[in-house]
Amino acid sequence: MKILIIGGKGTIGKKVAARLAEKHEVILAGRKEADIQVDITDSNSITKMYEAVSGIDAVVCIAGEAKWDYFDKLTEEDFYIGIKSKLMGQVNLVRIGQHYINPNGSFTLTTGILADDPVVMTTSAALVNGGIHSFVKATALELQNGVRINAVSSGLVEDAVDKYQDYFPGHNAVPMHKVINGYIKSIEGKINGEVVRILE
Amino acid sequence: MKILIIGGKGTIGKKVAARLAEKHEVILAGRKEADIQVDITDSNSITKMYEAVSGIDAVVCIAGEAKWDYFDKLTEEDFYIGIKSKLMGQVNLVRIGQHYINPNGSFTLTTGILADDPVVMTTSAALVNGGIHSFVKATALELQNGVRINAVSSGLVEDAVDKYQDYFPGHNAVPMHKVINGYIKSIEGKINGEVVRILE
Repeated sequence: MKILIIGGKGTIGKKVAARLAEKHEVILAGRKEADIQVDITDSNSITKMYEAVSGIDAVVCIAGEAKWDYFDKLTEEDFYIGIKSKLMGQVNLVRIGQHYINPNGSFTLTTGILADDPVVMTTSAALVNGGIHSFVKATALELQNGVRINAVSSGLVEDAVDKYQDYFPGHNAVPMHKVINGYIKSIEGKINGEVVRILE
Repeated sequence: MKILIIGGKGTIGKKVAARLAEKHEVILAGRKEADIQVDITDSNSITKMYEAVSGIDAVVCIAGEAKWDYFDKLTEEDFYIGIKSKLMGQVNLVRIGQHYINPNGSFTLTTGILADDPVVMTTSAALVNGGIHSFVKATALELQNGVRINAVSSGLVEDAVDKYQDYFPGHNAVPMHKVINGYIKSIEGKINGEVVRILE
């Protein structure tokens, strides 16, 4: 398969990209240090990315941000950081990408445990993740030519424990090989419209 | 209780408002035919509404729209109709309202079955509803002074069957008295951070 990974340099992305590269042709897209530059907050940039590659069988997004802060501190603009990036960035990757991806291809988006099991300071991040979960279910009903869509929702991943454990009291770390398998299940399997939850 | 209902003139809203008015002081807010005018897509309008009322014990939102269309027809701007109205409109009612609502008050938002069980043409509406579900869970962890938040998610409601049944093949109509009870459970009960699903 020819696989386009947006965000293949982050904590999760680099592990997923390395694993996929063992069996597939992988193209990395991102804001920097990538084969193709893309800013997912900008639809024109997304279109340019798809125009620059061809014959893509799988699109994997492990990119997108959202502002973390206490709910009584978050401004309307703060909410729009996540809406423009991790929410509409991923929607636009699918909305535009549906016209470029190969028949029987797949989109695999990334959300996270906050959609189902949020912690303090994550009202905006939870909203974004929950929005993508329902978007994936709805979009699976409509994609044409056998194209599939899923999301991978991981808990606190092992490689981010040092940085984030204080924000996730009592959460178990998720081994990276299980997180990687969530993506493999979506890309190499045949599931459609599913949220693959990798929680421990 | 003094209850502020945004959208108390719609299919669901008018029934909920009538029931609440039997026991409570009800103030209706909306774009028209209301006690107080408000446009939930505009934060300044929301602030003005809260400035104009005082001593509110419960805020109920049964307003907000999202664009329905096939996924390959929806533009980025179409998605932002729902994001600005039913998604961020409801977020802003809580974000701003937390500074005005009485201690031990409650926010009750409205979503719908599309978050969990979407149909064709609802990728944008599903996204909005799913986003609010996760937002409610996360926000419940942070609201101060005993203030609670919940969402009511109904299936195809009885009073809208004639208009919508062709879009919801095989969905059962939900009796209006059960829908009303979903709101009562949130407002008069003590639940917090819940999505009250009224599915049949």
